Parts: sequence; structure tokens; C-alpha cells
Amino acid sequence: MRKNISTAVIRRLPRYYRCLSELANEGAERISSQDLARRMGLTASQIRQDLNHFGGFGQQGYGYNIKELKNELRVLLGLGRAYSVIIVGAGNIGTALARYSGFAREGFYVSALFDANPARCNRAEQPPIFPADNLEGYLAENPADIAVISVPVQHAQAMADRLCKAGVKAIWNFAPCDISVPAGTVLESVNLSDSLYQLTYLAAHREKK
Amino acid sequence: MRKNISTAVIRRLPRYYRCLSELANEGAERISSQDLARRMGLTASQIRQDLNHFGGFGQQGYGYNIKELKNELRVLLGLGRAYSVIIVGAGNIGTALARYSGFAREGFYVSALFDANPARCNRAEQPPIFPADNLEGYLAENPADIAVISVPVQHAQAMADRLCKAGVKAIWNFAPCDISVPAGTVLESVNLSDSLYQLTYLAAHREKK
Repeated sequence: MRKNISTAVIRRLPRYYRCLSELANEGAERISSQDLARRMGLTASQIRQDLNHFGGFGQQGYGYNIKELKNELRVLLGLGRAYSVIIVGAGNIGTALARYSGFAREGFYVSALFDANPARCNRAEQPPIFPADNLEGYLAENPADIAVISVPVQHAQAMADRLCKAGVKAIWNFAPCDISVPAGTVLESVNLSDSLYQLTYLAAHREKK
Repeated sequence: MRKNISTAVIRRLPRYYRCLSELANEGAERISSQDLARRMGLTASQIRQDLNHFGGFGQQGYGYNIKELKNELRVLLGLGRAYSVIIVGAGNIGTALARYSGFAREGFYVSALFDANPARCNRAEQPPIFPADNLEGYLAENPADIAVISVPVQHAQAMADRLCKAGVKAIWNFAPCDISVPAGTVLESVNLSDSLYQLTYLAAHREKK
């Protein structure tokens, strides 16, 4: 059944989770699809349709139980467990991600960074930064659930190939290029340039007032 | 005419631009819609349809002139001009973006960062980091084309309001929340948590081999 869910629906799931987490933090217990729709800028019928894909957590006339729905979404998103993460490329972005405490709060633990530049390597740092040559040896002893690629664009595909060969099954790519991974490996990319150019496109074609 | 172009098409434009830049760097002069499709993982008819929205740069039987199409896309994306950028929030992500040299290469110049934490402020740094209180005064004298929001989630909307009131017309938001901006202001968000949860969703629902 889950195979037929469109990418657009799946892309909205983290937003639902985020919105329900905010509501739970505010102390709310139930929310109607209408109110959830208003908060998320969607229609109530779209929300009911989206959540029906996953079993339909709502009760006619009572709305959604926020805590319950949030927990279901958490499991659905593969959260609520620990993930060991390595970061390949200890430049600006790689280092910023390693230092971001928000990820640890949701169960993502960066165990190590790797860099081709010896000057950046530092075993004493927390997490340690190892030479890129040590990657395969490290992964053989410390399997990683997720590898972040934050190397320069010309090395990104070769690094993805190495990671996949070393058994990594989930790649979060920050290099500003498309990379390909073998079947059975999942990939999600954050392309900051593409996002910035999207913004300049919108700015250039904005309705003049 | 441009008002009817779908978001999906617009989202692909930076990828076209990126792909054509790579081809130009490789020294290629022309490319057929078939070859471009193969390279981008799209179909040739989709590529012809996409580019027809913007005037149709191809010539039947000759393919696309890479340099010409790249330059047209560059203008279309609002690139090929200078943008002054300020960054609000000099934490991990804000600082990483300020240091990223790739943006300067495409005409984006970070003139200043702002932070509410006095310990982070430093006028001697390049670009300088000013106290957040100085934001309105600075913008009155140094209008910014783009403001990056990289403050904690609980301050993001208030900061967006301040920026819009101070005349900023384009916001690139990195706070992991939805923010709203007045009509006439454009907004593009990079939500790293949403992207990471997308990855864990895919990993959790991967076809087991």
C-alpha cells in the first residue's frame, strides 16, 4: 500500500510532524483537520487525504489526538531511534552540521568527520576529524546509518561510490550536484545553490507593485 | 504568460542551469534534448516542454546551443547581477554560509551578519558581525537585496517581520519552521530537519533486499 504514496505527500510528513510537535509543546490535546489546515496553509480535505494514506488517525467529529498522531508520525518517519552519522568533508557546511545540537535531540549522533586535508584532521576534537583515507577502515569497525556528503562537487560522486561500497545505506548529500546511488541505498540532497537561485528567480519575476 | 508556469518547472530551472554550466565547462557546444534528458534523469519531451515555457531555445534537429541556453537561463534565474546579502543569526549555519565562497562567484556578497549575542559580534571580522539591535539602522544606510534568517526557531517570525518592515524584499530562511511574509516579498526556505526526516522516512520504508 505504501508504494503508491506520492512524493508530494511524503514531503509533507515532516511538516505535519513539526506542526504537531509545536501544538504538543503548546499544551494542545486535540485539533480538527480545519484548524490543522489553517495552521499549515493546506485544505482540510487535503489533510484528511494525506493522513488516510497512513491509516487515518482522526475520529469524525473529534478531530485528531495530537500526541497520538505525533507519535505515529514519528514512527512513520523512522524517528524515535538512534542513528549513527558520519560526515565526509569537514569544511564550512560539514562542520556546521556536526555542531548543530538539534540533531542530537532527535537521535542523530555524529560519530566522526573525515577530510582529505590533513590540516583539518584532529583526533582530539569531539567528534574527531579523521583523514579521508581512514574511511573504509573506520566504517568496517563502526558502521554508520547515515553518511553526510559535504565535499567539493568534483569529489562527490566518487565519495558516494566509496560510502556505498563500504556498506552505507543512506546518504544525505550537500554537494551542489546530482549524485547516483545503487538500488537499496536511499539518498536525499540539499542543494543550497538551487534554493538560492529559486529565490532569485522569484525575486526577478515578482509582481511589481 | 509566466504566471502559469508550475512550481515544479521553476524548481527544475536551477538544475538545468547547473547541468548546462557543467557541459560548458567540459567544452561541449550543443546538446540534444535526448542527451540532456539522459544526463538529468528526465524525458526528452519533458525537457522540450519545460524550456518551451520560456521561449523555446532549441532548434529542431540541431539541439540546444549550450552557451546560449545557459546564458538565457542565467538571466531568467535573476543571476548575472550582484546581490547584497545580510545574514541574521551568526551561529553554525549563518557563519558557514558567510564563509562559503561559491556564492561570491555567482554575485552574492555578504555585507554583514547580525546576532543577538554580544559575544558573537565582531566589527573587525570580514564580513563584520553587528548586534541585532543595529539591524534597522544598518539597513537604512545599506539596503540588502536578500536577508538570510538563521536564528533559532522561536525568533524566526519576529525577525522576518523586522526585515520586511525594514524594506527587505527577499528572504532565505534556514530556521526550521514555516514563516510568512507580506505580499511583494519573496521567501525560500531550507529546512534541514525536514530533509533529514525525509531521508529517515525513505530508509525506514526502503524495500528490504
